Amino acid sequence: MLIKIICGQMNIIPGRPDENYKRILELINTAKDKQADILLLPEMCLPGYLIGDLWEQQTFLDDCHYYAERIIDASQDLCIMFGNVAFEKNKLNEDGRLRKYNAAFACQNGKLIGGYMGRSFIIKNSLPNYREFDDYRYFYSLQKLCAEENAVVSEALQPLQLTIKGQTIKVGLMICEDGWTENYHLNVPQTLANNGAEILFNLSCSPYSLGKNKKRNKLFSTQAKAAGIPLVYCNNVGVQNNGKNVFTYDGCSSAYNADGTLVSSAEMYSTTILECIWDTETGCFVGENSIAPLPQEPESIYKSLRYGTKKFLEQCGIRKMTIGLSGGIDSAITAAMYVDILGPENVLLINLPSDYNSETTKNIAYNLAKNLGTNYAVIPISLSCWITEEQLTSTPILDMGTGEESHLLLSNIVKENIQARDRGARIIAAASAAFGGAFSCNSNKAEITVGYCTFYGDICGALAMIGDLWKHQVYALGRYLNEHVFQKEVIPEEIFTIRPSAELASSQTVGTGGDPLIYEYHDYLLASFVENWHKTTPADILRWYKAGTLAKELGCSEEIINKTFLTPGELIADLERWWKLFAGFSVAKRIQAPPILSITKRAFGYDHRESQLTAYFSREYYQLKKELLQ
Amino acid sequence: MLIKIICGQMNIIPGRPDENYKRILELINTAKDKQADILLLPEMCLPGYLIGDLWEQQTFLDDCHYYAERIIDASQDLCIMFGNVAFEKNKLNEDGRLRKYNAAFACQNGKLIGGYMGRSFIIKNSLPNYREFDDYRYFYSLQKLCAEENAVVSEALQPLQLTIKGQTIKVGLMICEDGWTENYHLNVPQTLANNGAEILFNLSCSPYSLGKNKKRNKLFSTQAKAAGIPLVYCNNVGVQNNGKNVFTYDGCSSAYNADGTLVSSAEMYSTTILECIWDTETGCFVGENSIAPLPQEPESIYKSLRYGTKKFLEQCGIRKMTIGLSGGIDSAITAAMYVDILGPENVLLINLPSDYNSETTKNIAYNLAKNLGTNYAVIPISLSCWITEEQLTSTPILDMGTGEESHLLLSNIVKENIQARDRGARIIAAASAAFGGAFSCNSNKAEITVGYCTFYGDICGALAMIGDLWKHQVYALGRYLNEHVFQKEVIPEEIFTIRPSAELASSQTVGTGGDPLIYEYHDYLLASFVENWHKTTPADILRWYKAGTLAKELGCSEEIINKTFLTPGELIADLERWWKLFAGFSVAKRIQAPPILSITKRAFGYDHRESQLTAYFSREYYQLKKELLQ
Repeated sequence: MLIKIICGQMNIIPGRPDENYKRILELINTAKDKQADILLLPEMCLPGYLIGDLWEQQTFLDDCHYYAERIIDASQDLCIMFGNVAFEKNKLNEDGRLRKYNAAFACQNGKLIGGYMGRSFIIKNSLPNYREFDDYRYFYSLQKLCAEENAVVSEALQPLQLTIKGQTIKVGLMICEDGWTENYHLNVPQTLANNGAEILFNLSCSPYSLGKNKKRNKLFSTQAKAAGIPLVYCNNVGVQNNGKNVFTYDGCSSAYNADGTLVSSAEMYSTTILECIWDTETGCFVGENSIAPLPQEPESIYKSLRYGTKKFLEQCGIRKMTIGLSGGIDSAITAAMYVDILGPENVLLINLPSDYNSETTKNIAYNLAKNLGTNYAVIPISLSCWITEEQLTSTPILDMGTGEESHLLLSNIVKENIQARDRGARIIAAASAAFGGAFSCNSNKAEITVGYCTFYGDICGALAMIGDLWKHQVYALGRYLNEHVFQKEVIPEEIFTIRPSAELASSQTVGTGGDPLIYEYHDYLLASFVENWHKTTPADILRWYKAGTLAKELGCSEEIINKTFLTPGELIADLERWWKLFAGFSVAKRIQAPPILSITKRAFGYDHRESQLTAYFSREYYQLKKELLQ
Repeated sequence: MLIKIICGQMNIIPGRPDENYKRILELINTAKDKQADILLLPEMCLPGYLIGDLWEQQTFLDDCHYYAERIIDASQDLCIMFGNVAFEKNKLNEDGRLRKYNAAFACQNGKLIGGYMGRSFIIKNSLPNYREFDDYRYFYSLQKLCAEENAVVSEALQPLQLTIKGQTIKVGLMICEDGWTENYHLNVPQTLANNGAEILFNLSCSPYSLGKNKKRNKLFSTQAKAAGIPLVYCNNVGVQNNGKNVFTYDGCSSAYNADGTLVSSAEMYSTTILECIWDTETGCFVGENSIAPLPQEPESIYKSLRYGTKKFLEQCGIRKMTIGLSGGIDSAITAAMYVDILGPENVLLINLPSDYNSETTKNIAYNLAKNLGTNYAVIPISLSCWITEEQLTSTPILDMGTGEESHLLLSNIVKENIQARDRGARIIAAASAAFGGAFSCNSNKAEITVGYCTFYGDICGALAMIGDLWKHQVYALGRYLNEHVFQKEVIPEEIFTIRPSAELASSQTVGTGGDPLIYEYHDYLLASFVENWHKTTPADILRWYKAGTLAKELGCSEEIINKTFLTPGELIADLERWWKLFAGFSVAKRIQAPPILSITKRAFGYDHRESQLTAYFSREYYQLKKELLQ
């Protein structure tokens, strides 16, 4: 028998069961038009997934239940499997709130088909609680329920039996993480197969990150092969956020044959459907393979940033963007991306020169704006900074106890920060409000990692679009934009060659000085602190340095290390400087930073959680330092 | 036999096992000097508890292990029970990282005494994953371990057997949440008692919140009584933070007799010890009862804010504070608190008048500074705001595509926000850096709930000290400061009587207009959205309003509701206005807000997690609205 399965790769709007229900109805109609037997819909397709503590609102949950009932009503002549929150009013979660499950419902001809543990829904067993995921905060796992009701998980995981065209088939239905078997002691897909499943369905709401699709294809392919049955993966598109992080959902719904072959996949970031026809006799999918291509860096970065920014702005109702344009690479790439996303008429670029800005960067800014054909203004900040300095130093501070007067003195760093805040908080924030819409944060991940930015100056705005990109990725994105998006030199070539500089003091002007970060080394050093699954610490760095494997471990060139640090003492001083900032004061800045569009496997925010602490150096570190300095 | 038990109510420094070890050694010496038999130390007393993803650093964990070994070495002639992270290098957590447990170690004469599941430590079973807690993110629970190793939790929970003065006693050792039995299906203290424990020890790292001690006393008393054995609770002091929230730890270590009586407790927020002598024959504690008093509001609020702010500033190395002083209640209370905490010489108050500020509030600011005997300056913002407006409106915006020029227009709201940012980002941020130290965020919880504040204007600074206080709590704290702390009218009486106003426009001056929030009602309405364990939504409000129980449900006066809303339509319009802000744009502001000193059972930040979404109104809400408007 041939069974037609359709994955509804829908755009889920988080927190809007009413809106999502409308889309689901459309998909049901499409599936019926196409005479599908089974329609798969993603995990949490009614409520959305990353909705914070909205899970605690009963009236919201009631609506999720209401719309689920309407989906069941609409399942005449179609089997629909969809993810939703399930709750039981006679039970409590461990926090004393309503018992909730991350669940999937299967229905057909107006009725629910079955579930686990006597329920009419299946329950997610593997609750992810790492990165941005907080599943245990809200949901009771199948494992906990089994413990509570004295049952065994591997027995509870029974395939659903459904009848299609008079024939009974057994479906192993699972939810997202249940398919990510690597580190859970119970393998859900294998258990479902052992219990008789003839096909596996994975309903997901799985965010994109660089390299994840490759990993998923490998893992799911292995699972299908190990279980000896086909597997269909249904994922959503759209953006969802956890406050500090904005994640894109790339869809990429896929079907794998029983031998592990990927036979078809849906286009990335596309609101679409994936159709496949399963032959229950052979256990294989029939028809031609149709696999959507997966882009490589920097194309993948461009696509994710473009899609994520566009959708996030739409969701926030932001139609126009103002960008402070320094003439450096970060603001240039941000500006070019926004013009690409919103159109030149909806972007305002402002160059805000002080006495320290070079003709070079001012010209670059002008030329970029001209090449982009967008709105441009030059608003100098010298006068206002001078007034601020004057006010601060000339105003008497009166000691109301003694009656004595004193005056404030401004150090160089205070003067630099005055300029950054004059640009960000005084001009750009107000100009963006007057222009309509919001303004952009142009900080990259290296700057954010060490706090090389000014509170309420440049680390502010509605979204840090390139906040999860290292400097070398920013450059590569710039090259990609010129070559493939604009297909001409829109971003002036000079930007790629001048040394980055903050231009906040005479020591920081282009030509005479530059950023304290040597990106060819620090990009990789800092990435090891943040992104390595087993976090790198200063002791690791010194151990690798001593063993002569530092460049290899970090993935940077041997040459840049040797050129930058002539002695172990220099490397150690540099390491301590940045580690102290990374683990210390920069945390305070990140706490108040804008949301970051997240594309790596570790972005600052809910994905990489931090407390304000003093930087810690381990015993091993001090020992290695002593040895290296001897 | 008499057994002397000492609780080391130590100040844990999060993320510093080296420093904590030093304190523990001192406590071990104290215990030995006092000839104690057992020394109890808090949960996670070496690493600290709220340390974010620092748990992922192996060299940090190695040091926690190293110092634990040194504690064991120091246990000659003393039984020490302490909380620490335990890890197993041959196993993984579900995130693929090292297997870690929230554990407690018991040692005596240089050796470990035993633990659960064949380990040499006991393992926390009930992992809290609500409010600010992320235990499942880092730790494997006893329940999961039992599932993995095919064991039964209730059998794994065996008391530790130790020998004191030749006699064997059975101790039921548990970690913090294991004692909060209400909503877990397995009752750990009861199970330990069933399995033969003669006494219960609860090692905690339990943050303070208003009313929690009363609840804990009731619960732990019930447990001791139900189990029929005494219970000793050891908690730490200090502050720890999760980035967005700063929590105080109040200690309040306590001993309960087998009949549930609280017999002794240690002073709140005091680095101290609690001594108690347990008679193993009678099962009771001997000696006189010594119970430290628990303060009521507003004294409890004053103590928590003072302690929390002092410790947090110390931890961040901040010794001086600058505060923008408007003449309103929030900045006045904040200023008075900082003078109380840091001394008048370390505080700088700045009044920043525009054309809209009344003589009334300017005089109040001056008088308050005078009464506090602190540093005071007046820095007007009219000129700089005028320059900003001039620059923004006179600078041509060039459309680089068409060559056309245009100009920005500034709405009233844009002009108001320019003033707020001129104060916060242009003056206060720079002045505080020049004065040394940081500046304060003076926002209260009502403002933060609806985003009645300006990005990079007033919702910025190092700490929102009163950010978890509703307006009526701010007033009560002000009264308390005058009456009990300063014992004279330091905060001018006028502040308590004038209507709060932002003074950012001629419509908002004192006398002619005030805040849009009617705090006598909105404090309670907004609290129901945020703090009710079962979150209140607009449908609940309309349901209660229709039933005539709204005032009772919210805890405000009937009169204020009737006076404020003459028709259902007025109440509904007001409700929708604030709900849209609470669930909508204010989230964006909170994402970039400073850390909040958290004292309620629900503070914004990691305690109340939020995604940027559009505000949702439920089906029931629309139905009730329709009925009420008919």
